[in-house]
Amino acid sequence: MTERAAHLRDVFVAGVGTTPFGKHLDRTLGSLAGEAADAAVRDAACEYGDIEMVVFSNAAEGVLSGQEMIRGQVALKDTPLAGLPLFNTENACASGSAAAHLAWLAVAAGQVDRAIAIGAEKLFHPDKNRSFAAIESGTDRSLNSEDLRPGQGSVMMGAYAAEARAYAAEFGDVDKAMAAIAVKNRRFAAGNPHAQFRSPITVADVQAGREVAAPLRLLTCSPLTDGAAAIVFSAERPRTGDRPGVVVTSCRSVSNGPAGPVVERAARAAYEATGLSVHDIDVFQLHDASAFAELLQYEQIGIAAKGEGIAAALDGRTGPGGDMPVNTDGGLLSRGHALGATGLAQLGELARQLRGEAGERQVPGARRALSVNSGGWMGDDYATAFATILTRR
Amino acid sequence: MTERAAHLRDVFVAGVGTTPFGKHLDRTLGSLAGEAADAAVRDAACEYGDIEMVVFSNAAEGVLSGQEMIRGQVALKDTPLAGLPLFNTENACASGSAAAHLAWLAVAAGQVDRAIAIGAEKLFHPDKNRSFAAIESGTDRSLNSEDLRPGQGSVMMGAYAAEARAYAAEFGDVDKAMAAIAVKNRRFAAGNPHAQFRSPITVADVQAGREVAAPLRLLTCSPLTDGAAAIVFSAERPRTGDRPGVVVTSCRSVSNGPAGPVVERAARAAYEATGLSVHDIDVFQLHDASAFAELLQYEQIGIAAKGEGIAAALDGRTGPGGDMPVNTDGGLLSRGHALGATGLAQLGELARQLRGEAGERQVPGARRALSVNSGGWMGDDYATAFATILTRR
Repeated sequence: MTERAAHLRDVFVAGVGTTPFGKHLDRTLGSLAGEAADAAVRDAACEYGDIEMVVFSNAAEGVLSGQEMIRGQVALKDTPLAGLPLFNTENACASGSAAAHLAWLAVAAGQVDRAIAIGAEKLFHPDKNRSFAAIESGTDRSLNSEDLRPGQGSVMMGAYAAEARAYAAEFGDVDKAMAAIAVKNRRFAAGNPHAQFRSPITVADVQAGREVAAPLRLLTCSPLTDGAAAIVFSAERPRTGDRPGVVVTSCRSVSNGPAGPVVERAARAAYEATGLSVHDIDVFQLHDASAFAELLQYEQIGIAAKGEGIAAALDGRTGPGGDMPVNTDGGLLSRGHALGATGLAQLGELARQLRGEAGERQVPGARRALSVNSGGWMGDDYATAFATILTRR
Repeated sequence: MTERAAHLRDVFVAGVGTTPFGKHLDRTLGSLAGEAADAAVRDAACEYGDIEMVVFSNAAEGVLSGQEMIRGQVALKDTPLAGLPLFNTENACASGSAAAHLAWLAVAAGQVDRAIAIGAEKLFHPDKNRSFAAIESGTDRSLNSEDLRPGQGSVMMGAYAAEARAYAAEFGDVDKAMAAIAVKNRRFAAGNPHAQFRSPITVADVQAGREVAAPLRLLTCSPLTDGAAAIVFSAERPRTGDRPGVVVTSCRSVSNGPAGPVVERAARAAYEATGLSVHDIDVFQLHDASAFAELLQYEQIGIAAKGEGIAAALDGRTGPGGDMPVNTDGGLLSRGHALGATGLAQLGELARQLRGEAGERQVPGARRALSVNSGGWMGDDYATAFATILTRR
């Protein structure tokens, strides 16, 4: 532990809450955010009055509803959180992790004793082009040629597809590996009552799906999703009897730049800050916005060596019963990807795993967990990536 | 000092930088942000390589350019800051203060030794209705009736005007007081080379101006502004020879809620956290988005008693040579109001005052400074307010 880190207090993931992820055309952003906050406060066994600060994450509400600014204040105005210090934060698909890191920081610093991070997103819109326009606004627009613009579907999936084709040219066909990841994440999702898609699928189902952007098909692309997730961070162990505590061990992030792929750099920073390696982690959340993204991240965080992502996807190590289980709640592909909520949903799942409360999807004896949450797109890599390590205590 | 605050390190406002505020149709957001960052890093007498984290504030780029997400990563991609941890933050017109508070927090916590907060905004648009649509998106849109919508000018000025009329009904005519504030801020702006408007104006000029929303006229409303501002926060005293240091004494914020006006609550929180009162402050920045806002804030932060804002505006105490100088760089009315940059420009001016580097607008011997930066609008009050106290050391 460095001299600097000595200033930071231990922080507990005291309470987690997630709404069902799915299509919620009839609900407001505020109603989703409030439900997640209620659940997190209840789970933390505290009162709203104990919360001293809010960090709110949302990625696309400006495009989708026109509420460009003060999104958190508007979403939470009818909750007991109205009036508290509130920071709106955005980092595209990694917005939820950004909110988690800032709320953690405020508690770790001792500025407050309890802070809540709330992420919410309503990505479905009666006009589907608006949904795709929202997603496109998460890319560096100065780099997008006209044929990637809305009306052509998701520009993000076009970017993943190009990455997958380049990878396949070097390391071999990725179709079966991607299908295996989609099937694996759906198997996990069956055990998650809040997942968007829970019905079992087969490799044949995946391969029969509509092509979105070769080699990606419908079931290897994350869906449009509405949903919210929240976490209460606390300097005190929550008063929840015998339930194991969960502490934040490392919060690291990087942005797009000349130093290399953001996911690799963020994970390395988290490992180096803690002296841990991938072998110390019992359960993972990766950013499977496409099945190929999960495959590549196996290599970038050390689950597989370079060029061996395909084998890792096929040999079962990241699935139920494997020694490196990834996306035990279904991941972005099956739990769903409610942009501003995703990072908090990831951390919520990891906290449940570390407490031993994950039901049929429980990883036995999980002690340490890592989430990777990436966001945005700038030419040939994400705009940002966050790596967070949680530990049972 | 509470037990909790003991965790926080002293943090220096090590370097400040501001672009000229004005109309910059020919420049990109990134070019403005980069210029402000360059200036702040140079002013801090450090290197870009010393900076470990970026907090980026912008309020309206999603509406104005379509770059809804990853605004900071895109704006800074060609600077040496590309690659660092970066948090995009938004709190409407108070976004810049939100960025300052988060960057301060990261240094105070010991997470990093140096962080930069950068705020940038390009509010001018070839289609002026887009500019007004952007401003309208800083209000709770569910509360706005159709006749407040774009095409009718700024919804914010309509809200200020209604507040001013209600105040006038209770405490007397505000026209002369508002004109005095506009003239006073323009006098200060004459000494600020980066101010948007520097030519002297008279009370007669103000009263002859076009009516925007009675009783507000053109010169009692803040203008559309493009610009950027940045601050380097550091755990170390900057290596700048004999120049006085400036430390962050208090960072407080609140959001709209049942507990009362946000400006009053934020200022009170800052006073209470430090044991200071308004009489300990030598120089102020208030959020004069309209001249009436400054008048009301005199009362809300204690410069004047309730109902005595008019007298305070007329008796010269907040002007050049007064004992409670407010908006010494021209304020939002004359320096300009580049939404996401405003809070950082305010703090930059206060740092220059505390160092004794404010030239002809210098407040002699200024030791303590307070900024109030409010943002957004929800029915009958701002959505949020930030109060920051800086001290010469």
